Parts: sequence; structure tokens; C-alpha cells
Amino acid sequence: MDLLNQTVKKIGKLDDEIMEKTRKRVDNLIKPIGSLGKLEDIVVKLSGITKKPFPKVDNKAVIVFAADHGVYEEGVAAYPQEVTVIQTLNFVKGVTGVCALAKQARADVIPVDIGIKEDVKEEGIINRKIKYGTDNMAKGPAMSREEAIKSIEVGIEIAEKEIKKGRNLLATGEMGICNTTPSSAIVSVIGGYAPIEVTGKGANYPEDKLLHKASVIKRAIEINKPDPEDGIDILSKVGGLEIGGMAGVMLAGAANRVPVVVDGFISTAAALIAYKIEPKVKDYLIPSHFSAEKGAIKGSKLLGLRPMLDMDMRLGEGSGAVLAFNIVEAAVYMNNEMITFEEAGINV
Amino acid sequence: MDLLNQTVKKIGKLDDEIMEKTRKRVDNLIKPIGSLGKLEDIVVKLSGITKKPFPKVDNKAVIVFAADHGVYEEGVAAYPQEVTVIQTLNFVKGVTGVCALAKQARADVIPVDIGIKEDVKEEGIINRKIKYGTDNMAKGPAMSREEAIKSIEVGIEIAEKEIKKGRNLLATGEMGICNTTPSSAIVSVIGGYAPIEVTGKGANYPEDKLLHKASVIKRAIEINKPDPEDGIDILSKVGGLEIGGMAGVMLAGAANRVPVVVDGFISTAAALIAYKIEPKVKDYLIPSHFSAEKGAIKGSKLLGLRPMLDMDMRLGEGSGAVLAFNIVEAAVYMNNEMITFEEAGINV
Repeated sequence: MDLLNQTVKKIGKLDDEIMEKTRKRVDNLIKPIGSLGKLEDIVVKLSGITKKPFPKVDNKAVIVFAADHGVYEEGVAAYPQEVTVIQTLNFVKGVTGVCALAKQARADVIPVDIGIKEDVKEEGIINRKIKYGTDNMAKGPAMSREEAIKSIEVGIEIAEKEIKKGRNLLATGEMGICNTTPSSAIVSVIGGYAPIEVTGKGANYPEDKLLHKASVIKRAIEINKPDPEDGIDILSKVGGLEIGGMAGVMLAGAANRVPVVVDGFISTAAALIAYKIEPKVKDYLIPSHFSAEKGAIKGSKLLGLRPMLDMDMRLGEGSGAVLAFNIVEAAVYMNNEMITFEEAGINV
Repeated sequence: MDLLNQTVKKIGKLDDEIMEKTRKRVDNLIKPIGSLGKLEDIVVKLSGITKKPFPKVDNKAVIVFAADHGVYEEGVAAYPQEVTVIQTLNFVKGVTGVCALAKQARADVIPVDIGIKEDVKEEGIINRKIKYGTDNMAKGPAMSREEAIKSIEVGIEIAEKEIKKGRNLLATGEMGICNTTPSSAIVSVIGGYAPIEVTGKGANYPEDKLLHKASVIKRAIEINKPDPEDGIDILSKVGGLEIGGMAGVMLAGAANRVPVVVDGFISTAAALIAYKIEPKVKDYLIPSHFSAEKGAIKGSKLLGLRPMLDMDMRLGEGSGAVLAFNIVEAAVYMNNEMITFEEAGINV
């Protein structure tokens, strides 16, 4: 709890003064004012986060947390639970979706076992297992409050280690069969939505069983009664270990003034947990894609974040965030490479 | 006319057989079917264009055509006409928006003077000037039919030269003060929209003068009576030289089986001209961003292309297309780097 408290205490406001200066420069670049849209907003935000007029994003990594879920036994996934461990091993081999896209974006993938239900001993996977999968949230809390805090602190520790190495742009990713179920529960609790409104097909779960999935989520919320104002309570009762890890990365990013790109639905649920712990974290987050998962847009709206990529993607793993690394980098190039009207000797 | 005719004749259909094979492979990559959304569609299309199971996009360029417009004298722009030549010189210096984004996307910018109203002698700018700006389309045709054909053929020649050099991904860009005016005219004529429905503020043209801008477009259409079914007629009467050049790049891309990424509103108008000349060209085009310019989405819909980037951008120059180069490249990485369930030894 000490690490979490210290981290939260370190989270400050964006630097308004430098943001104003950057905005002024961006407005004066040789283009009509506002014509580079969100690229302009991104670099202004980056400067407010980093307190630098020319922020860099040349050292990028996506931290991918893998964990299993006790609620799997309720029949809420189309894929067998073994896929969690298989895909985590594939992260090391570099052959999954996020790995392919990270290679294009010149970013590293850092896989973490934070709660896979099997032992995974493989070089390249950081072993920070808290427990062998969560408990079945449809029958009781997914984990204890202490375990929830620990999951966030693991995320903080790993993020801070990367930041010390020089990372200046992070993203969150995850792997965990059936983790759209806890994510829908989190968005339902925090947004006050009925579970069915935010329950989607995840990894190709059959449409005709969605009512069942939503009823499992409803039951989990009814049994556990998570406090909508207490992020840790929600995480422990209807969340997941990988979701806690991602929330930790976001809090650590904010505390250390490093931007964090949020992937799709499950990352957004993690962002909501982080936001409930410390609302200022939101200012350090950069949205990525409109996930095709039902509930994703509602989740983003709760955070006031509007995604940029409309790709019909719903893979998870951090794939959408990594794709958006390119856009964040493009914003930085705009700021670095373009000149102002003054510098160009144009009097407009 | 010979070059245009020959080029159009060369445009064939996408290769269905190889597309089916690529789709099968993409469906079998280690992810839920369809979960990488448009990335999957892009690589299938690329394979159909190139007839290759593993298409490459490692040699990218945006061809940026600069030209002036006689209709400027009607007061339809917020910026002075001199900006066309100033920005074209800035393309060579590498300091404009498209240059900055091209650097991030590892692509080259190729500026072409196809009709600037001043002489521009500068190393790095290809001089293929057809005339010193178009004539005022509000008083008569913007150019002769021969000049319109010539502008398309200039685009074809430049694109084919680049393709011979090994380019495997092209994009179109433009610079031309007040060129949203002819673009709106083109979308209006081809889509059957009233000018006001597709007239936007371009480069910060004042909102309260939009009715004037639309009335100029309306007059141009009434005076010239372009044939909505004849792309060359539309281009010559209410188009622009840079628009012809871009249409030529698209036709040359299709004829030589090289994909072309379409930028925003003005590129979309050019795509509509190319489409009216040969509908099959559409299959070789890749959309990029939802331009913030009014009429852009209507134009994309006429082509059946749905953009991917929601960035509130409206700079032109090819900036949005170059940003989308990253996405096209990511699709190729997905195809190259991910393995199939079979290759992973997973039986799902």
C-alpha cells in the first residue's frame, strides 16, 4: 500500500505554462491554425506531461500483463483457458498481433505473468504472479483487497523500472481468456450501466449467449456489491490481476510524467480503476482506437478520452495502443520538423 | 490522350484467387477471426493488387502536386495566392506538415509544379507546369479538355517513373490556394449534391462567407454544365491541374498494380475523377483519414471507401495519407510476423 500511496501522491497537474507555449508554437507552424487537429493536441499534452517544449517518444514499450480468471468456469469465453499461457509464450517468440505491430512501431513488448493459473517459466516473461488466477467473481470477490493493491503495485514497479531505463512512451496490453467479463463489470459499476449495455462478444463469444454472459456479470455485481467510488474495491471484487497491473502502469506513468497510451476495452477498464484512485491520472493518458467491443466507447466517454483510430479492431494485447504509437510519434515529428511562419519569413 | 488510354486499358481486376488465399491465412493467424479488423482487409486487398501473398510496402512516396486556381479572384480563400509557391518551396526544405509526417513514416515527398502561376525554379521540384494556374471557372472552363488530359498524363508519367524506381506504396497530395473550391464542385457534380452541402471552410475561410463560396461553385457549375458521367469534362470545367495530376497517379497505380493511399477532401475529389474515367481504379485505392472538411465524408462514400483515422485533420498536402502509411505498413507486418494456429501447434 505504501508504494501505491506514494505513487498517487506524486501525481501532479499538467504544466499549463509550457502547454500554452507549445500551443502558441503549434498555432504558428506553417499551416492553417488547427489544421493538424489531434496531432496538435497530442503534442501540447505531451509537453504538459513532460514539462518539455520538444518532448521525445523515441523509446517505446507496451507492458502486457497476463492473468487468468475464475469466472471462466461460468462459460463466458469461446476459447479454452489454456490460450492465456500459450499466447503469453508467443509474446516471447514475437509472433502475436501486438508483437507484429510493435515491430512496425519500433517498440518493445514486455510480457508479465501477473496471475496465469499455470506456472510459466520462460526467459523473457517477467514473473510477478500474485495468484494462480482470480477466484470466480460470480460466487464471491475475484481477489482480496490486498491482492488488488499488490496487482497495482506490480504494475507500478514494472513501469518505473522501464521509465528508469529511459522509456518515454508506454502502453498497456493484456492477455487473459474471458477478461472482457470483468472489464464489462467495471464499466457497468463505474458508469452505472446495466451489464447488458456494456457486454460484448469479446474473442468471438457467440452472440446468442451474450445474455448469459451479462447475467453472470450482473450476479457478480449483486453478490459483491462493489463501491462505485472505490477503485480498489471494484478491482478486487469484479476485476482482474492484469487489469490491476495496467492501472498501476498508468498511475506510475502519471507519477513520473511519462505518457501512457491506452489500448481498447480492457485497458479502458483499467484506466477507469486508475481514475477512481486518482482522477488526475486521466491527463497522462492518450487514447488509441475505437475498439469494436461493445462498451468500449462508453468506457472512453467516462474518461473523456476520444480515440483516434477507427479500425474495427478487438484483439487486445495492446495492439491498438501500439498502432497509435505511430500517431503520437507523428505529433512529435510535426513539432520538431515543421517551422513557424516567422521562421519561414511569411507574414500572414 | 494515348498515354491515358493505354493506362486505363491496363487496369485489371484484383486477383481473387490470391486474395482468397491471403484471407484464409489471415483468418488462421493466432488471434480471434476478424479481431484485427481493417488491418486484415488491407493486407488482403494489397495481395489482390500486387498478386503477392506477402506484399511489401517498404518503399513509400507521396507525390504532391502544386497549382493555382483562377477562381481565386472570386474571393474564395483566406490565404493569399502566393502561399502556393511559398509552400511548394517549403516542401523541398522539408519543413511543411506532410514533410514532417513523411519523415516519421519513412516516406519521400515528391513536389511537382503542375500549374503554379509563377515560375518556380528550384532543385527538387519537378517542373511539369501545364499552365500558369487555371482560368476562373466561375466565368468559363478552368482549362481546356486537352489540358485536363495532359494534367492526368503528367500524374501518370511521374507515378510510373517512381514505380520503375521500386516504389510499392504511393500517396497523393496537393498544394493550391483555394483548391477546396474546385473539389467541392467536383463532389457536387458527381454526387448530385447542392454546392452548399459540400462546401466547407478549407484553410480557415470564414464561416460567414461560406454562402458566397458555395454561390461561386454554383455559378461555375451552371455556366460550364459539366457532364456528370465524363470525368475529363468535369476536371476541365470545374477542376484543377493538381487534381488531374493526382487522378493520374491513381490510374497509374491501378495500371501498374501499386496501391495508392488517398489523402483527404481534394484527393478524394481526384479519386472521383479517376473513378469516372475507370471505375476499377477504386479497388487500388486505400482511404486514410476522415477529413474535417465538409463534403469529405460524402466524397468517400461515393467511392465506397471508409477512412481509418479520425484526427480532425484538414491540412491537405497528403498529410493524412502519409500518416496512414503507418497503418498500411502495420497490416503488412501483421501478415509477415504473425504465425498461424497450425504453425503455433494450437488446435482450436
